[in-house]
Amino acid sequence: MIIDPASFPAASAYKILIGSIVPRPIGFVSTISAEGVFNLAPFSFFNAMCGEPPVVGFCPGNRNPPLDTLANVRATGEFVVNIATEDIAEAMNLSAGDYAPSVDEFTVSGLTPAPCEVVRPPRVLESPVNMECKLLQIIELSARPLGASLVLGEVVRFHLDKTIIDDRFRIDPDRLRAVGRMGGTAYCRTRDRFEMIRP
Amino acid sequence: MIIDPASFPAASAYKILIGSIVPRPIGFVSTISAEGVFNLAPFSFFNAMCGEPPVVGFCPGNRNPPLDTLANVRATGEFVVNIATEDIAEAMNLSAGDYAPSVDEFTVSGLTPAPCEVVRPPRVLESPVNMECKLLQIIELSARPLGASLVLGEVVRFHLDKTIIDDRFRIDPDRLRAVGRMGGTAYCRTRDRFEMIRP
Repeated sequence: MIIDPASFPAASAYKILIGSIVPRPIGFVSTISAEGVFNLAPFSFFNAMCGEPPVVGFCPGNRNPPLDTLANVRATGEFVVNIATEDIAEAMNLSAGDYAPSVDEFTVSGLTPAPCEVVRPPRVLESPVNMECKLLQIIELSARPLGASLVLGEVVRFHLDKTIIDDRFRIDPDRLRAVGRMGGTAYCRTRDRFEMIRP
Repeated sequence: MIIDPASFPAASAYKILIGSIVPRPIGFVSTISAEGVFNLAPFSFFNAMCGEPPVVGFCPGNRNPPLDTLANVRATGEFVVNIATEDIAEAMNLSAGDYAPSVDEFTVSGLTPAPCEVVRPPRVLESPVNMECKLLQIIELSARPLGASLVLGEVVRFHLDKTIIDDRFRIDPDRLRAVGRMGGTAYCRTRDRFEMIRP
């Protein structure tokens, strides 16, 4: 079956994209508005992009007005990526509703804002990994309804729960218990693993 | 534990990045060189970036000379993203070795090159989803040893195995059986799932 997305409903092409590019890591992003309101929202068009310096990217979808996260990053140049785990998955989902800019999703979700070292947005205390990020660049990929912008940020601080990491900075996936995004309303755990050594 | 990557070994910061941003989807990318040699290599700094038009991105790490995939995309402006599944995971791993530009990883891995509709690189016949892509932009994120470039491409054709999709273009994850990338030498399956409805 061959599909030309240019002559196909955008919503169907989007479903193919989110159903097949799986499992996607979740960037659970905290920001602060120019007025000082905290915001928290998950993004699965997200990944590490570069190792040195560490760079991450995520893609807020187009909204009118723009998503609070994007507006806040534009206004402040800062964001924090928190890693989504099994323990905070339900709280994360609560933060994913469509709330007014005045709503603080830390309050909605019951998660705890904790101070960062070099950026103003708070990090999620309950997440075992937080990455303080400074904005590098925002690339508007498309202005169409299901379009998105790509936000690139450099990680300027890592916060790590010591219990998930060994003395060689390897993270134990069974202690991290990250969750990933699948298509539709589905998520996956990361307990079912196998190893392959590169030739 | 707080880490400033600017005053920390880059290899350790990289380990934190790949151990915590999990599970990562795998873009199993096929290209063709200016001389007509096929290439195939997996990338886990990869994701969907935009829904309309469908845009995907992946991040080849810096090498000297550049990775064949990056050189080929620069030379031809085209690539194919194939989805990595349990059935082809071992073959994919075989393709991930450091081979000379003259080596065709389809031959190394035993996978079958199949023609595309609008781009010259072949797709992987054994993968149930192939995305023919036209290059949009290459962004050099960093020239440092563990740096990378971000390659953005627009999907111009989807090839889908009909048995993995329903009549509303929803992909069945148990038929797709995608695999994701974890830290170190670990991969994860996508069988262990749960559902959450957005509020």
